Amino acid sequence: MEEEKVRDKEELLLEELQATLAVRDDAKFCQIVETAYPVDLGIVMGKFSDAELLYLCQLLKNEKLADILEHAEETLQIRLMRILDNNRIIKLMRFMSKDNIVDILGDMPVKNRKEIVRLMQFGEQKIIQELLGYAEDTAGGIMTTEYISFRQELTVAETLQKIREIAPKTEEINTIFVLNGMKQLVGTVALRDMLLAKDTAMLADIMHKNVISVEPEADQEEVARLVSKYDLPVIPVVSKRKGLLGIITVDDIIDVIVEEHTEDMLRLGGVSKEENIASSLLDSVRMRLPWLIVNLLTAFLAAFTVSMFESTISRVVALAVAMPIVAGMGGNAGTQTLAIVVRGIALGEVKWGNNKRLVLKEIFLGVINGAATGAITGVLIYFMFGNVYLGWIIFAAMICNLVIAGFFGFLVPLILKALHADPAVASSIFITTATDVFGFFIFLGLAKIFIQYLL
Amino acid sequence: MEEEKVRDKEELLLEELQATLAVRDDAKFCQIVETAYPVDLGIVMGKFSDAELLYLCQLLKNEKLADILEHAEETLQIRLMRILDNNRIIKLMRFMSKDNIVDILGDMPVKNRKEIVRLMQFGEQKIIQELLGYAEDTAGGIMTTEYISFRQELTVAETLQKIREIAPKTEEINTIFVLNGMKQLVGTVALRDMLLAKDTAMLADIMHKNVISVEPEADQEEVARLVSKYDLPVIPVVSKRKGLLGIITVDDIIDVIVEEHTEDMLRLGGVSKEENIASSLLDSVRMRLPWLIVNLLTAFLAAFTVSMFESTISRVVALAVAMPIVAGMGGNAGTQTLAIVVRGIALGEVKWGNNKRLVLKEIFLGVINGAATGAITGVLIYFMFGNVYLGWIIFAAMICNLVIAGFFGFLVPLILKALHADPAVASSIFITTATDVFGFFIFLGLAKIFIQYLL
Repeated sequence: MEEEKVRDKEELLLEELQATLAVRDDAKFCQIVETAYPVDLGIVMGKFSDAELLYLCQLLKNEKLADILEHAEETLQIRLMRILDNNRIIKLMRFMSKDNIVDILGDMPVKNRKEIVRLMQFGEQKIIQELLGYAEDTAGGIMTTEYISFRQELTVAETLQKIREIAPKTEEINTIFVLNGMKQLVGTVALRDMLLAKDTAMLADIMHKNVISVEPEADQEEVARLVSKYDLPVIPVVSKRKGLLGIITVDDIIDVIVEEHTEDMLRLGGVSKEENIASSLLDSVRMRLPWLIVNLLTAFLAAFTVSMFESTISRVVALAVAMPIVAGMGGNAGTQTLAIVVRGIALGEVKWGNNKRLVLKEIFLGVINGAATGAITGVLIYFMFGNVYLGWIIFAAMICNLVIAGFFGFLVPLILKALHADPAVASSIFITTATDVFGFFIFLGLAKIFIQYLL
Repeated sequence: MEEEKVRDKEELLLEELQATLAVRDDAKFCQIVETAYPVDLGIVMGKFSDAELLYLCQLLKNEKLADILEHAEETLQIRLMRILDNNRIIKLMRFMSKDNIVDILGDMPVKNRKEIVRLMQFGEQKIIQELLGYAEDTAGGIMTTEYISFRQELTVAETLQKIREIAPKTEEINTIFVLNGMKQLVGTVALRDMLLAKDTAMLADIMHKNVISVEPEADQEEVARLVSKYDLPVIPVVSKRKGLLGIITVDDIIDVIVEEHTEDMLRLGGVSKEENIASSLLDSVRMRLPWLIVNLLTAFLAAFTVSMFESTISRVVALAVAMPIVAGMGGNAGTQTLAIVVRGIALGEVKWGNNKRLVLKEIFLGVINGAATGAITGVLIYFMFGNVYLGWIIFAAMICNLVIAGFFGFLVPLILKALHADPAVASSIFITTATDVFGFFIFLGLAKIFIQYLL
């Protein structure tokens, strides 16, 4: 219901803007824009044509348009960069924080990007070029430089005075960064603590000293883990010599967490994070086909296993009916173990070595769940084909395959983690291959051994 | 590398604490505790025995222990509640924010919970009982009451003076909530804007009026979506009459996002969010077996499909070898479409109705990817069995099944969403069932029709 409300709000805004645009009621437009949230305006403006968009941009003040641009989806950012001229872009960027400028520049063709950077003032140019130098998914790539830092000898009164002067220009003023004489980060002071402290106290006296920071090369996922673990409102990025390079605010961290989440889900589904519902048919083919071909190769491994037992199957066709059950259930059980182990790895609860007890548990779990599902399957297969031995064989095969599923479900993600691969994604294909191949092999192998009871 | 550092830090802390505990060096212990982060202390303390834990708790001041308790994992919270006496617990809770108290009480046996609430002061008792009344995963269930609110007629100078008085007791002071004469929430003021405003300005003049809020019944996932979309540092929870009930801070929102992420991944893997690596064998059986049995039923649906073609398979055993490939590839392609559509639904880009173009795209994608993988499969099958018609049949079946995969992969999540079920989890089982049943049916059906060419 809440969701419906939000959608309605966006649709209402769209209708209002379309109405004002239709009659060119510019005053009404400016009035709507005044109270609407930039992110909503961005979503709605994304639905207009280039010509309409350009008209609207001419009505918007630089500060407002910059705000919309900062909060817009990548697609709208790219469109706006394409239709606006460089002078306007430069003016807009004066109102934007450095991390957002860098994001937008990063999505532009190199030639255009260079041209815009060239038009910037020298000081700004230098900062932007430095920020552009960091990889997109590292602390350096998501940090911004709009922070407040002061020398530790400053008093609270002096600091508050200075804050009043520079606050309008900075993104984050709730945390003040404290530097020593060598410009090293030595502490932080929360604005609230400043309000509570005596005017004559020095920052060095009231600062929090044990600061958690990251280096610019740190992976953004690791930064998010730290922010989430320590409930930080902002995390400083420092050089090896503890010089303050920039800060990452919590709203950017939320973006990272949501982005990584989406990426994980997409990769588990076997699609690229680049693909979305609006991707062209050819892009989708290009991004999905490789994964299907990888899966095809593993499917052939399973098919070869089955082909080893062709003569057995030709004598007892019921085997062909029952064999996908054994393989499929192994796959399901393996994925369950995988999900638990991957979370354990993420939380640092499961590490390489010293897991004997946990592996044993998964093996016992395979025995119990295999016996339970195997018993149901055995009985049903007995009723379908009237052969009690076939029931027993599928019961035994199910137990074996669920034990194998538990074993591989546990070990494969640990091995991949040790090899620095993503344990969540790559694991599933190895585990499914193992449970398919072993599932077919055990079931058909048992059938071959006891073939005289099945005829 | 960053991760290693964090682990090392925790292990170092554990070793230090163990060393001080071994020689009962209480002074050293207090010194370590002074500088360590509460969340790290919580992780490390979770590794001690009950007796050791109780000893450490006696050394810790109430404020520090409360801090550790607030940041600890659920398991440690439950243990501490069990070993500490009620008087100590009440003292600790005076230093804790209401949302954390409610979380901890929620995990306690009802009898103990009631006893502790009874021991609280009347005012606090009332708030806690009210908060306990909201469902755990709603805005009401995660909100806290430590916020600052003022009447809109107050001036900046008056407000700042009052803030200095009450700041130590409140969780969030960076945002000030502004109420009208009827105690309705009418605006917010950021602390930074207060520092920049004139002393004589009224809150009503400088406040931001278009406040985004939620009602206490709102789902926590929806709250997280709003906070993430609008980059809010804090979101107010209001009654239908716009009375301010509480606030939710961004660090709690991060917990929600991380929690929902973990839950999604676990449910996709077919395990309950209650299960973790430390779950007992029997708990794991109890939580995993139902999902396996659901899957077993769908596996039987596929087996019944195969059984309809027993006589065909008995004449051409190669069919048994090739049929899992068609079914499996359909499952993979369906999961790809599912992943894209589920994300589209989450972003509001895909809705029920008006999707003809998108469905058509998935169908064409099925044709193209099916033709590509079908061609590879057909050629390999031809080389394996020397029958060109079998190659053509698997080629055709692969195209059909991948079209079906695209069709169901698109529609099933939309239907489930319309029925208010979770599209991500339940979809995969329906889609796999569809691609298995149709995959076997089409491939074996084609084989039956053209059986004379296969002999």
